[in-house]
Amino acid sequence: MTLEEQMIDIAKRAKTASRGLTTLSTDQKNRCLRAMADAIETNQEAIQSENAMDLEAGREMGLSSALLDRLELTETRISGMSQGLREVAELPDPVGRTLEERERPNGLKLRKVSTPIGVVVIIYESRPNVTADAAGLCLKSGNATVLRGGKEAIHSNQIIAKTMVGSAQDICPEFPLDAIQVVPTTDRQAIPLLLSLSEYIDLCMPRGGEGLIRAVADCSRVPVIKHYKGVCHVYVDREADLDAAAAIAVNAKTQRPGVCNAIETLLIDEGVHDDFAPRIAQLLWDHGVELRADAAFIQQVNGSLESRDSKLVQATETDWDAEYLDLILAVKMVDGVGGAIAHINQFGSGHSDTIVTTNDTTAERFLNEVDASTVYWNASTRFTDGAEFGMGAEIGISTDKIGARGPMGLEELTSYKWLGLGQGQIRE
Amino acid sequence: MTLEEQMIDIAKRAKTASRGLTTLSTDQKNRCLRAMADAIETNQEAIQSENAMDLEAGREMGLSSALLDRLELTETRISGMSQGLREVAELPDPVGRTLEERERPNGLKLRKVSTPIGVVVIIYESRPNVTADAAGLCLKSGNATVLRGGKEAIHSNQIIAKTMVGSAQDICPEFPLDAIQVVPTTDRQAIPLLLSLSEYIDLCMPRGGEGLIRAVADCSRVPVIKHYKGVCHVYVDREADLDAAAAIAVNAKTQRPGVCNAIETLLIDEGVHDDFAPRIAQLLWDHGVELRADAAFIQQVNGSLESRDSKLVQATETDWDAEYLDLILAVKMVDGVGGAIAHINQFGSGHSDTIVTTNDTTAERFLNEVDASTVYWNASTRFTDGAEFGMGAEIGISTDKIGARGPMGLEELTSYKWLGLGQGQIRE
Repeated sequence: MTLEEQMIDIAKRAKTASRGLTTLSTDQKNRCLRAMADAIETNQEAIQSENAMDLEAGREMGLSSALLDRLELTETRISGMSQGLREVAELPDPVGRTLEERERPNGLKLRKVSTPIGVVVIIYESRPNVTADAAGLCLKSGNATVLRGGKEAIHSNQIIAKTMVGSAQDICPEFPLDAIQVVPTTDRQAIPLLLSLSEYIDLCMPRGGEGLIRAVADCSRVPVIKHYKGVCHVYVDREADLDAAAAIAVNAKTQRPGVCNAIETLLIDEGVHDDFAPRIAQLLWDHGVELRADAAFIQQVNGSLESRDSKLVQATETDWDAEYLDLILAVKMVDGVGGAIAHINQFGSGHSDTIVTTNDTTAERFLNEVDASTVYWNASTRFTDGAEFGMGAEIGISTDKIGARGPMGLEELTSYKWLGLGQGQIRE
Repeated sequence: MTLEEQMIDIAKRAKTASRGLTTLSTDQKNRCLRAMADAIETNQEAIQSENAMDLEAGREMGLSSALLDRLELTETRISGMSQGLREVAELPDPVGRTLEERERPNGLKLRKVSTPIGVVVIIYESRPNVTADAAGLCLKSGNATVLRGGKEAIHSNQIIAKTMVGSAQDICPEFPLDAIQVVPTTDRQAIPLLLSLSEYIDLCMPRGGEGLIRAVADCSRVPVIKHYKGVCHVYVDREADLDAAAAIAVNAKTQRPGVCNAIETLLIDEGVHDDFAPRIAQLLWDHGVELRADAAFIQQVNGSLESRDSKLVQATETDWDAEYLDLILAVKMVDGVGGAIAHINQFGSGHSDTIVTTNDTTAERFLNEVDASTVYWNASTRFTDGAEFGMGAEIGISTDKIGARGPMGLEELTSYKWLGLGQGQIRE
């Protein structure tokens, strides 16, 4: 088979498997998930021996120790995968929910119900535990998955998928063999070939850095749910409780700076008391944060604090849309809530933004006009997360507006259909 | 400006206008829609004079009389556009609906609310009334539109958009000038250039034949909501009320054969009484329908009716996914509901399919397993339509699974965001 034929074969089999998944009951899906969890633990040795092959090849390829660490399936990580699958089994079935119901004057009942999406392609980088996490969430939501992990993890990914499918079939013979497939080649051309098959594949979710996501989006003919980056903001309004503002800004920047829902820019209303700039600068310095600020902020700070040159530098235009993922923060003075909204809508990434204010009208305006997946009032941006939202599990966060937006749990892995229930109605 | 610069300029201005639209109240949007409706009627003469230029150019280009007819803006069609806009003004605002609400243990309130999508590109063919219909629905749902109609209608489309924008600005100075834009060139390269601008454009909805839609989907870097074709089915189960089955099949095929929710294939359970085949054949012939059937159906008919060769021919493989849009029907005997589901999922277009049966379990299986935007039980497929669904207005029908599926009214032109309402919550 050519590579193209191979991809068509995978995609067709996934489509057929997705039909089979719609016939499984909730109980069957949950029993499969639990069997998979058990099998991953039982087969720990076999999984680690395949993982050792990946690690050895990785060392030969000269992978960094950070990458090798991500690749390694320790006992803790293996039981973490199992635990994740068991948790997904406990969550409510997202398929078959009645989303809306209406009866037409002719007696036709219309019911909008949630359905699986169909075939979901997941493209990810080095962590092999994503294989189990993503496949488990897709199974629970009735979707067949085609998994394409990093080339350095191919043996690990294959054994995990094989273990999952085998154990599910043992306990539930109706479980479709092709419901979870790992692309068996590391050829880079496989991705555009696979993502051209819009007849069979319903969605692609790339997980990784901006480069990976852009490359996938550029070549795909199937819908891609994307999350390029997180350039999140805290805006401190002139009517803010400044203690709350300081606590929220520090938390949103420093509690875990390397993640997408950490802030990268602090916006301060010009109408806030002059004391606030030196106060927040001092607090952020105390947390090890370097500030890249506009002239107005620098002036307010330098007027009252002794210079800490290396921790307070002049921002350049590229700082406003930078995703530092580090203890660095851009800071800008803006002209009220209007200035904040304009800045965020121009430079933000549509992820998460906060206003701190005690004024309801100002807050309403910010909540309405900021164009982002999650907009907060008096809370840290760090809450944008499936677990924090009470979704139970998260497959990713979307900054797109078609399909899911914001944290994606099981419900966000579903589509819907309309059911029309009649008693012989015809159209006049 | 180069064509590319021109498209970037249009897209940027649309994005800015979409921000402006979020600040309009429901009342402001409705007053704009009513002012537009009035202005279209008041400016009938100017609109018809621009339309006359298109008609003259069309005649010179040698357009068919059918195309010229579609292009013409008669008095009735002009008042139809106005009427449509007034009806949209009466519909509830789809933006700002609370879709879900929850409170987290830390007191953070999460509210999922509907929002505009942003910038919507509409690509359509010759009917200039689509300009007013689509722009009106997008305005009510808070979206900026970039309209690209057929080149033969460019003067008509431009005057309609100009009339709409001008009258809205007269009554509401906050109405953004660029909220409704018609691409001012007929250059075909404009479409791929425009649809590469995913930074500014959030959605594309092509309306037209399969060729147009495929061309748009193939070149687009922004999400496209598609509707390739309608290959709809009626399946008559062995436990069907055969009078209802006959009425539904005849209605779904003949009531308006040229539309996408008319059926193209009739599936009959092999377990249905032998009488049914000749009976339904006779009925369909009486309605002028030509049948393209499999050998089993032909045998049953020929055993009991005199031959009508020209009205009953052997189907070929290409009949199963053909969209005739005409008084032609493919007919196939299948092995029960399982056979029907397999056939529909293989050959259907995911639009609308019906089962006729009195057996609840059989119906449940069909409703669950058929993968289509609307699945009926004992009703005609012809009901898949915004008006019949009670949506008030329809911008199209989607056979996609990401974003809207099935008939698309105002609510289907919205996205959502999460609001996080706190009292100073930070993440521990």
